Amino acid sequence: MEEWDEYEYKPKNVKEIFIEMKNTAELMVDLAYSSVLFGEEEIAEEVLELEEYLDLLNYHLMVHAVLAARSPKEAEQITSILQMAHSIDDISNAAADLAKMVLDGLELHPVIKEAILGSEEIIGKVIVSPDSILVGKTLEELDLASSTGVWIIAIRRGKRWIFAPEGDVKIFAHDVLIGRGTQTSMDYLKEIARGIIKVVSNE
Amino acid sequence: MEEWDEYEYKPKNVKEIFIEMKNTAELMVDLAYSSVLFGEEEIAEEVLELEEYLDLLNYHLMVHAVLAARSPKEAEQITSILQMAHSIDDISNAAADLAKMVLDGLELHPVIKEAILGSEEIIGKVIVSPDSILVGKTLEELDLASSTGVWIIAIRRGKRWIFAPEGDVKIFAHDVLIGRGTQTSMDYLKEIARGIIKVVSNE
Repeated sequence: MEEWDEYEYKPKNVKEIFIEMKNTAELMVDLAYSSVLFGEEEIAEEVLELEEYLDLLNYHLMVHAVLAARSPKEAEQITSILQMAHSIDDISNAAADLAKMVLDGLELHPVIKEAILGSEEIIGKVIVSPDSILVGKTLEELDLASSTGVWIIAIRRGKRWIFAPEGDVKIFAHDVLIGRGTQTSMDYLKEIARGIIKVVSNE
Repeated sequence: MEEWDEYEYKPKNVKEIFIEMKNTAELMVDLAYSSVLFGEEEIAEEVLELEEYLDLLNYHLMVHAVLAARSPKEAEQITSILQMAHSIDDISNAAADLAKMVLDGLELHPVIKEAILGSEEIIGKVIVSPDSILVGKTLEELDLASSTGVWIIAIRRGKRWIFAPEGDVKIFAHDVLIGRGTQTSMDYLKEIARGIIKVVSNE
């Protein structure tokens, strides 16, 4: 299916498509808030590309699901998949609407950024210093979600963005990490990134 | 305003209402997935109550926002608040739709639970053993989001539920913690809850 070609990951069955949809919608929400917070059009554009990807996933899910129904009981169960997919799609559309605010160049009220920074889980930006222990390690090795509580959603390396970085991505000095977590987690990661804390707790 | 009465927290201004809306919508999504995963109607009912609360917050936000506009520039900025509130409301409605699947007694396809358990961030259930170091400590002391990467969204204590527990809530033996995090984080918290790991990393 050539539509998948621009994405590395090609889900094979209903379960995989479904997981990919859920992960994508969650990433879209995080990226949408990031684009609003930092006024970053490139992040907002990524959200809109992911929206198209999610629509495609949704289409393939429907095709797979409809083909799978062989009895009324199965049909009811499969309806539940389509309903949940619909909710996931609604979430992704809401994220896309947020991203469009950035791309439309809407004059944002300062309270919007304050709200994103004042929530229980916040979005934060962390710059990696050359003497940080993060440098040269992969995200899989570091497992920052478990060791610091910060979920890395994007990395800016010079002018290039890496969205939803995989475990094999290595961190370089001067990388800008965009993450989601509590204020405490974010502060902890900042100390590590600045080279002040020299050990990650799960090592 | 008596509508707030059943909720402890009473936001005072646009920023506070906005933060409360964002936190509430995010909690609703987590709880909605939890209700689907565990087939828990009480969690699903909480999601629907939070939906009503969020509608009320949205109404008060609009009243505050409209009153605040004094110039065309301010009006544009305030429009951005209403747009973002609309997106947050869409997310909360999607969560409510998920919860309704549970309350409608829909026959759920097994792939739905597999997808929730196979996502990058999963929902998990952890039972606190009497000899766990968690017992007798408050959530604020433990700061599990930073120390384990697991975000606690609800606690079941006997037949009672505590949703979105505050920092002053103390953990008791036999509490059931419902959390969101990576598989690794969840496994780590389980070892702590079982009493196998005797220290939390931030202590």
